[in-house]
Amino acid sequence: MADPGPGAAPATAGRRALDVGRLVEQATGGDPAHRARAVGRLISLVEDASPALREVMAQLAPRAGAARVIGLTGSPGVGKSTSTSALVAAYRRRGVRVGVLAVDPTSPFSGGALLGDRVRMQEHATDEGVFIRSMASRGHLGGLSWATPQALRVLSAAGCEVVLVETVGVGQAEVEVARLADTTLVLLAPGMGDAVQAAKAGILEVADVFVVNKADRDGADRVVSDLRHMQSLASTAPAQARVQGEWVAPVVRTVASRGEGVDEVVDRVEEHAAWMSRSGVLEQRRRRRAADEVEAIALTALRARIGDLRDGDALQLLAARVVDGVLDPYAAADELVAGVGAGLRAGPGLAAAP
Amino acid sequence: MADPGPGAAPATAGRRALDVGRLVEQATGGDPAHRARAVGRLISLVEDASPALREVMAQLAPRAGAARVIGLTGSPGVGKSTSTSALVAAYRRRGVRVGVLAVDPTSPFSGGALLGDRVRMQEHATDEGVFIRSMASRGHLGGLSWATPQALRVLSAAGCEVVLVETVGVGQAEVEVARLADTTLVLLAPGMGDAVQAAKAGILEVADVFVVNKADRDGADRVVSDLRHMQSLASTAPAQARVQGEWVAPVVRTVASRGEGVDEVVDRVEEHAAWMSRSGVLEQRRRRRAADEVEAIALTALRARIGDLRDGDALQLLAARVVDGVLDPYAAADELVAGVGAGLRAGPGLAAAP
Repeated sequence: MADPGPGAAPATAGRRALDVGRLVEQATGGDPAHRARAVGRLISLVEDASPALREVMAQLAPRAGAARVIGLTGSPGVGKSTSTSALVAAYRRRGVRVGVLAVDPTSPFSGGALLGDRVRMQEHATDEGVFIRSMASRGHLGGLSWATPQALRVLSAAGCEVVLVETVGVGQAEVEVARLADTTLVLLAPGMGDAVQAAKAGILEVADVFVVNKADRDGADRVVSDLRHMQSLASTAPAQARVQGEWVAPVVRTVASRGEGVDEVVDRVEEHAAWMSRSGVLEQRRRRRAADEVEAIALTALRARIGDLRDGDALQLLAARVVDGVLDPYAAADELVAGVGAGLRAGPGLAAAP
Repeated sequence: MADPGPGAAPATAGRRALDVGRLVEQATGGDPAHRARAVGRLISLVEDASPALREVMAQLAPRAGAARVIGLTGSPGVGKSTSTSALVAAYRRRGVRVGVLAVDPTSPFSGGALLGDRVRMQEHATDEGVFIRSMASRGHLGGLSWATPQALRVLSAAGCEVVLVETVGVGQAEVEVARLADTTLVLLAPGMGDAVQAAKAGILEVADVFVVNKADRDGADRVVSDLRHMQSLASTAPAQARVQGEWVAPVVRTVASRGEGVDEVVDRVEEHAAWMSRSGVLEQRRRRRAADEVEAIALTALRARIGDLRDGDALQLLAARVVDGVLDPYAAADELVAGVGAGLRAGPGLAAAP
C-alpha cells in the first residue's frame, strides 16, 4: 500500500511504455550484455509492483513457461547458497542455461543487492549463461505468491532452461517456495536440527529430493537413516502416497563446498523431471502454480480497488449511514462490492494492482 | 475457510431463519434469562461466521450503535482482567448496564469457555445488568476487525450502555482493539515491562487514559514519571497532536484488586467521552470503525467468491491457458475478477461470506 509505483505512472507513462517493448526485446534477444541488464530491470519492475508489469507479462506470455523450476529449501546453515552455487556449476558443465532467484520474503529492501553468502556466486558472475538475482518481496500483500512467479516468467523468457529458487527466509516461506517449484530439494546437514524437526516444520512432505549436505561430518549417517525411517513411516500414510504418486524422494549425500555429490543431485533432479512428465504431475503442478499466481493478482487487484474506494468518498458515506443505524454492515458491504465491480468494468484495469 | 457454517446452511435454513427473529426479539426483550441466553447465541453466530448474521445485523441495525466501547490493552500481567472486573463493579454502582467482551485473537477455540482469569468475573455472573462473554476469532481471515464489531452490535442492541473490550492476545491485537474502541485504556504496572517498551509496542499512541495498576508496588512512581516524560516528548510531534486533538491522556493510579482508583478511571473515561462528543472525535472514530467493519466484510466476501471459483472449474481453466502461454496472468486475473463480479450480481449475496 505504501508502494509509490502507481502514483508515479502518469508522468512517465510514455517513456515506460517505450521501455517495456525494448526491455522485453533486449531480455529475450541475442546480446548477452543487454540481456543481463534488461532481465535485471524487468525483475526490478516485479519487485516494485510496477504498473508496467501487465504489458510486460502480456508480451512475455508465449515464452514465459519453459524453464524448469527447482526450489531449494532447508534451515539456515545447511549450506543452501553453497549448494545453489555448486548446482549452477554442475548445470553449466552440462551446457544448460541457469537462472538463480534468491527470495527473501522478510526483507523490506529491494533486490539487486548481493547478500552476504552470495559472494560464492561471484564465480558465475561473468558467465553469460547464468543469471543471478536476489529479490525482496517488500511486504507485498500478495507476498511470494505474487512476485516470484512473475520473476520466473522473466528468467524463463530470457532463455533460462533451469531456474534455482532459494529462499533466504525461514518457516512458512520454505513451504511456499516448494509450491512454486517443479522439483523441490530439501537440504539437511548434521547438527543443523535433525530430520524430526524438519518433519515438524512440514518440509519433509514437500521434498522431491533430499540432500544431506556436509556429509563428511559426524552425524551424516544418522541424518540419512532418520530420513529413511521417516519415509518408511510416511509411505504407509495414504495422503502422502497420493500426493507423491509413485515417486519416492531419493536421499543424496553431498559436500557442496567441494562439489562432491552434486552431479548425483542433478541426476536425481533429471529423473524426477522425467517422472513428472510421464506421470502428468508436471502439468498438475504448473497449473496449480498458475492458479496461485492468477488468484494472487486478482485478490491484490480487488483489495486495491477497495482501498481506492476507501480513499474516496464511497466507503465514508456508507460508514456514516451504518453509524446512523440506517444501514447494516452487510448491506453496506454489498454496496461497496458493487462499487468495486462497477470500478473494474469502467476503470483502467488491474495493471497497477498492488 | 475450514468453517463448516455455510455448507451446513441448507439443511437447517428454515429453523435458522425462524431462530433469528426470535433470538433478536429475546436479545432485545425484557426477560433477563432469555436475553442473556439469546445474546450468547447471537455472539456464537458471530464466532461461527454464520450465514444467518446478515439477517441478524439487518434486524439489529437501528439499535446496534448506542453502546460506548472501552478498550483495555496492556502487556500480560498488568492486571487487565482484574481491572475489567473492578470497572464493571464501578459502572454497576452508577446504575450503568455493562457488557464485557474478552477477545482472544489467537485462540482457535470457540468462546463461552471461561478463561482462567475470568473466575474474577464470577461475582458479576448473577447480575442481570452485566453480560460477560469471551470470544475467539477462530482464525477468520477478517480477524478481529470482522468479528468484534458484530459482537459489539449484539451487546449494544441488548441494552448495554458500556462495553469493555479486553484483549487476551498480545502485540498487534492490542492496537487493533484500540481501533475498535471509543476510549482506550492502556494499562501498565511496575515491573511488567516499562513505559519505553510500551512505547515501542505502539500502545502509547492509542491511549486515551493511562492506568498504572498495582500502584502500591515499588516502581509505580517511576512508571508514572516515565509516562509523563514520554507524553511531553510526544506532544511536540505534529502527527500525534493532530490525532489526539487537545486531549492529553491522564494518568491514573489503581490497585484494581482492592478497587482503589477505579472510580477515578471511570471519571476520566466519562470526561473523555464528553470531550469526544464536543470535539466531533466520537463521530470520526465511529465512522472509522464502521468503515473498517464494512471493508472487512467486503474483502472477506470477495475472497470467498474467489475461493468458490477456485473450487469450481473457472480458475483451473484459466490456469491451463496461462500454462500453455496463450493467456498472461494479468489477463487471466481480469477474467477471474469479472467472474467474481458476475457471481456477486447473480449469486446469493454475501451472507455466508467468511
